[in-house]
Amino acid sequence: MSFDPSTLTYDYNGLIPCIAQQDDTGEVLMMAWMNADAVAMTLQTKRVTYWSRSRQAFWIKGETSGHTQELIDLRLDCDRDCLLAVVRQIGAACHTNRRSCFYTSVTSGNEVELMTPQD
Amino acid sequence: MSFDPSTLTYDYNGLIPCIAQQDDTGEVLMMAWMNADAVAMTLQTKRVTYWSRSRQAFWIKGETSGHTQELIDLRLDCDRDCLLAVVRQIGAACHTNRRSCFYTSVTSGNEVELMTPQD
Repeated sequence: MSFDPSTLTYDYNGLIPCIAQQDDTGEVLMMAWMNADAVAMTLQTKRVTYWSRSRQAFWIKGETSGHTQELIDLRLDCDRDCLLAVVRQIGAACHTNRRSCFYTSVTSGNEVELMTPQD
Repeated sequence: MSFDPSTLTYDYNGLIPCIAQQDDTGEVLMMAWMNADAVAMTLQTKRVTYWSRSRQAFWIKGETSGHTQELIDLRLDCDRDCLLAVVRQIGAACHTNRRSCFYTSVTSGNEVELMTPQD
Protein backbone atom coordinates (compact mmCIF):
# COMPACT_ATOMS: atom_id res chain seq x y z
CA MET A 1 0.00 0.00 0.00
CA SER A 2 1.33 3.40 -1.00
CA PHE A 3 2.04 5.72 1.93
CA ASP A 4 0.43 9.18 2.07
CA PRO A 5 1.40 11.45 5.02
CA SER A 6 -2.11 12.95 5.00
CA THR A 7 -3.54 9.60 6.16
CA LEU A 8 -1.81 9.89 9.56
CA THR A 9 -3.77 11.16 12.55
CA TYR A 10 -2.60 14.60 13.65
CA ASP A 11 -3.57 16.49 16.79
CA TYR A 12 -5.55 19.75 16.88
CA ASN A 13 -2.34 21.60 15.93
CA GLY A 14 -1.78 19.35 12.93
CA LEU A 15 1.14 17.59 14.63
CA ILE A 16 2.14 13.97 15.30
CA PRO A 17 4.76 12.87 17.86
CA CYS A 18 7.88 11.21 16.48
CA ILE A 19 10.25 9.14 18.64
CA ALA A 20 13.87 8.96 17.43
CA GLN A 21 15.73 5.71 18.14
CA GLN A 22 19.37 4.95 17.31
CA ASP A 23 19.38 2.02 14.87
CA ASP A 24 22.36 0.03 16.16
CA THR A 25 22.08 0.54 19.93
CA GLY A 26 18.29 0.83 20.26
CA GLU A 27 18.75 3.92 22.42
CA VAL A 28 15.71 6.21 22.59
CA LEU A 29 17.20 9.61 21.79
CA MET A 30 14.34 12.13 21.84
CA MET A 31 10.73 12.82 21.00
CA ALA A 32 9.62 15.77 18.90
CA TRP A 33 6.76 16.70 16.60
CA MET A 34 6.14 16.64 12.86
CA ASN A 35 3.44 18.01 10.62
CA ALA A 36 2.50 16.33 7.33
CA ASP A 37 5.05 18.37 5.37
CA ALA A 38 7.83 17.47 7.83
CA VAL A 39 6.95 13.78 7.42
CA ALA A 40 7.18 14.14 3.64
CA MET A 41 10.47 16.10 3.84
CA THR A 42 11.97 13.49 6.19
CA LEU A 43 11.12 10.68 3.79
CA GLN A 44 12.35 12.61 0.76
CA THR A 45 15.63 13.93 2.17
CA LYS A 46 16.41 11.12 4.67
CA ARG A 47 17.32 13.90 7.10
CA VAL A 48 14.93 13.87 10.01
CA THR A 49 12.91 17.10 9.97
CA TYR A 50 10.61 18.13 12.80
CA TRP A 51 8.22 21.03 13.29
CA SER A 52 9.43 23.35 16.04
CA ARG A 53 6.46 24.33 18.18
CA SER A 54 8.39 27.18 19.84
CA ARG A 55 9.72 28.65 16.58
CA GLN A 56 6.74 27.59 14.44
CA ALA A 57 9.15 26.54 11.72
CA PHE A 58 10.67 23.44 10.18
CA TRP A 59 13.56 22.08 12.23
CA ILE A 60 16.03 20.07 10.20
CA LYS A 61 17.71 18.21 13.03
CA GLY A 62 21.38 19.16 13.28
CA GLU A 63 21.23 21.92 10.66
CA THR A 64 22.96 24.38 13.00
CA SER A 65 24.62 21.99 15.51
CA GLY A 66 25.85 19.40 13.02
CA HIS A 67 24.13 16.74 15.15
CA THR A 68 22.13 15.34 12.29
CA GLN A 69 19.79 12.38 12.21
CA GLU A 70 20.00 10.22 9.11
CA LEU A 71 16.75 8.35 8.55
CA ILE A 72 17.16 4.59 8.37
CA ASP A 73 13.50 3.65 8.69
CA LEU A 74 10.25 5.46 9.45
CA ARG A 75 7.53 3.45 11.22
CA LEU A 76 3.96 4.24 12.20
CA ASP A 77 1.97 2.77 15.04
CA CYS A 78 -1.30 0.84 14.96
CA ASP A 79 -3.41 3.98 15.52
CA ARG A 80 -1.41 5.99 12.95
CA ASP A 81 -0.99 8.73 15.55
CA CYS A 82 2.67 8.23 16.52
CA LEU A 83 5.85 7.76 14.49
CA LEU A 84 9.13 5.99 15.23
CA ALA A 85 12.15 7.23 13.29
CA VAL A 86 15.02 4.74 13.33
CA VAL A 87 18.08 6.94 12.81
CA ARG A 88 21.83 7.30 12.79
CA GLN A 89 22.45 10.16 15.20
CA ILE A 90 25.67 12.14 14.90
CA GLY A 91 26.81 13.31 18.35
CA ALA A 92 24.28 14.51 20.89
CA ALA A 93 20.55 14.38 20.20
CA CYS A 94 19.76 16.66 23.16
CA HIS A 95 20.20 20.44 23.17
CA THR A 96 22.04 20.01 26.51
CA ASN A 97 24.72 18.16 24.52
CA ARG A 98 23.81 14.82 26.00
CA ARG A 99 23.40 11.81 23.76
CA SER A 100 19.73 11.36 24.73
CA CYS A 101 17.11 13.76 26.09
CA PHE A 102 16.05 11.04 28.57
CA TYR A 103 19.00 11.47 30.91
CA THR A 104 17.02 11.81 34.15
CA SER A 105 15.79 8.73 36.01
CA VAL A 106 13.25 8.70 38.80
CA THR A 107 14.91 6.35 41.27
CA SER A 108 13.53 5.73 44.77
CA GLY A 109 11.56 8.97 44.54
CA ASN A 110 14.52 11.10 43.48
CA GLU A 111 15.68 12.55 40.16
CA VAL A 112 19.02 11.00 39.22
CA GLU A 113 21.13 12.16 36.26
CA LEU A 114 22.20 9.19 34.15
CA MET A 115 24.53 10.92 31.70
CA THR A 116 26.62 14.06 31.47
CA PRO A 117 27.04 16.43 28.51
CA GLN A 118 29.46 15.30 25.83
CA ASP A 119 32.74 17.19 25.25
CA MET B 1 16.29 16.08 44.08
CA SER B 2 12.96 14.66 45.14
CA PHE B 3 10.60 13.92 42.23
CA ASP B 4 7.12 15.44 42.16
CA PRO B 5 4.82 14.44 39.22
CA SER B 6 3.22 17.91 39.33
CA THR B 7 6.52 19.45 38.14
CA LEU B 8 6.22 17.76 34.73
CA THR B 9 4.85 19.73 31.79
CA TYR B 10 1.43 18.48 30.72
CA ASP B 11 -0.53 19.45 27.62
CA TYR B 12 -3.84 21.33 27.61
CA ASN B 13 -5.59 18.06 28.54
CA GLY B 14 -3.29 17.51 31.50
CA LEU B 15 -1.48 14.68 29.72
CA ILE B 16 2.15 13.79 28.99
CA PRO B 17 3.29 11.25 26.38
CA CYS B 18 5.06 8.14 27.68
CA ILE B 19 7.16 5.86 25.46
CA ALA B 20 7.46 2.23 26.59
CA GLN B 21 10.74 0.47 25.80
CA GLN B 22 11.62 -3.15 26.59
CA ASP B 23 14.58 -3.11 28.97
CA ASP B 24 16.63 -6.02 27.62
CA THR B 25 16.07 -5.71 23.86
CA GLY B 26 15.67 -1.92 23.59
CA GLU B 27 12.55 -2.43 21.47
CA VAL B 28 10.18 0.55 21.37
CA LEU B 29 6.83 -1.06 22.20
CA MET B 30 4.23 1.73 22.23
CA MET B 31 3.47 5.31 23.16
CA ALA B 32 0.52 6.30 25.31
CA TRP B 33 -0.46 9.11 27.67
CA MET B 34 -0.35 9.67 31.42
CA ASN B 35 -1.76 12.31 33.71
CA ALA B 36 -0.06 13.24 36.99
CA ASP B 37 -1.99 10.61 38.94
CA ALA B 38 -1.06 7.89 36.43
CA VAL B 39 2.61 8.86 36.79
CA ALA B 40 2.31 8.56 40.57
CA MET B 41 0.44 5.24 40.36
CA THR B 42 3.05 3.83 37.94
CA LEU B 43 5.88 4.73 40.32
CA GLN B 44 4.04 3.40 43.35
CA THR B 45 2.78 0.10 41.92
CA LYS B 46 5.56 -0.56 39.34
CA ARG B 47 2.76 -1.52 36.95
CA VAL B 48 2.68 0.94 34.08
CA THR B 49 -0.59 2.85 34.20
CA TYR B 50 -1.73 5.17 31.43
CA TRP B 51 -4.70 7.48 31.00
CA SER B 52 -7.01 6.23 28.27
CA ARG B 53 -8.12 9.21 26.19
CA SER B 54 -10.91 7.22 24.56
CA ARG B 55 -12.31 5.81 27.80
CA GLN B 56 -11.31 8.81 29.99
CA ALA B 57 -10.15 6.37 32.65
CA PHE B 58 -6.98 4.91 34.11
CA TRP B 59 -5.58 2.11 32.01
CA ILE B 60 -3.47 -0.34 33.98
CA LYS B 61 -1.63 -1.93 31.09
CA GLY B 62 -2.47 -5.62 30.79
CA GLU B 63 -5.19 -5.58 33.44
CA THR B 64 -7.63 -7.35 31.14
CA SER B 65 -5.25 -8.89 28.56
CA GLY B 66 -2.59 -10.09 30.98
CA HIS B 67 -0.02 -8.27 28.83
CA THR B 68 1.39 -6.28 31.72
CA GLN B 69 4.29 -3.85 31.78
CA GLU B 70 6.48 -4.05 34.86
CA LEU B 71 8.28 -0.76 35.41
CA ILE B 72 12.06 -1.08 35.54
CA ASP B 73 12.89 2.63 35.28
CA LEU B 74 10.99 5.84 34.58
CA ARG B 75 12.88 8.63 32.82
CA LEU B 76 11.98 12.19 31.91
CA ASP B 77 13.35 14.27 29.09
CA CYS B 78 15.19 17.60 29.19
CA ASP B 79 11.98 19.60 28.71
CA ARG B 80 10.08 17.52 31.27
CA ASP B 81 7.31 17.06 28.71
CA CYS B 82 7.90 13.45 27.67
CA LEU B 83 8.49 10.23 29.65
CA LEU B 84 10.32 7.01 28.83
CA ALA B 85 9.20 3.93 30.74
CA VAL B 86 11.76 1.13 30.62
CA VAL B 87 9.66 -1.99 31.11
CA ARG B 88 9.40 -5.74 31.10
CA GLN B 89 6.53 -6.42 28.73
CA ILE B 90 4.64 -9.70 29.01
CA GLY B 91 3.44 -10.81 25.57
CA ALA B 92 2.13 -8.28 23.07
CA ALA B 93 2.19 -4.56 23.81
CA CYS B 94 -0.16 -3.79 20.90
CA HIS B 95 -3.92 -4.32 20.94
CA THR B 96 -3.50 -6.09 17.56
CA ASN B 97 -1.55 -8.76 19.49
CA ARG B 98 1.74 -7.74 17.97
CA ARG B 99 4.77 -7.31 20.17
CA SER B 100 5.11 -3.59 19.26
CA CYS B 101 2.63 -1.02 17.97
CA PHE B 102 5.27 0.16 15.46
CA TYR B 103 4.88 -2.75 13.08
CA THR B 104 4.45 -0.74 9.89
CA SER B 105 7.46 0.60 8.00
CA VAL B 106 7.38 3.18 5.24
CA THR B 107 9.74 1.63 2.72
CA SER B 108 10.27 3.08 -0.76
CA GLY B 109 6.98 4.95 -0.44
CA ASN B 110 4.95 1.92 0.60
CA GLU B 111 3.59 0.66 3.90
CA VAL B 112 5.24 -2.64 4.77
CA GLU B 113 4.17 -4.83 7.69
CA LEU B 114 7.19 -5.86 9.75
CA MET B 115 5.56 -8.26 12.20
CA THR B 116 2.49 -10.45 12.45
CA PRO B 117 0.18 -10.99 15.43
CA GLN B 118 1.41 -13.42 18.07
CA ASP B 119 -0.37 -16.75 18.58
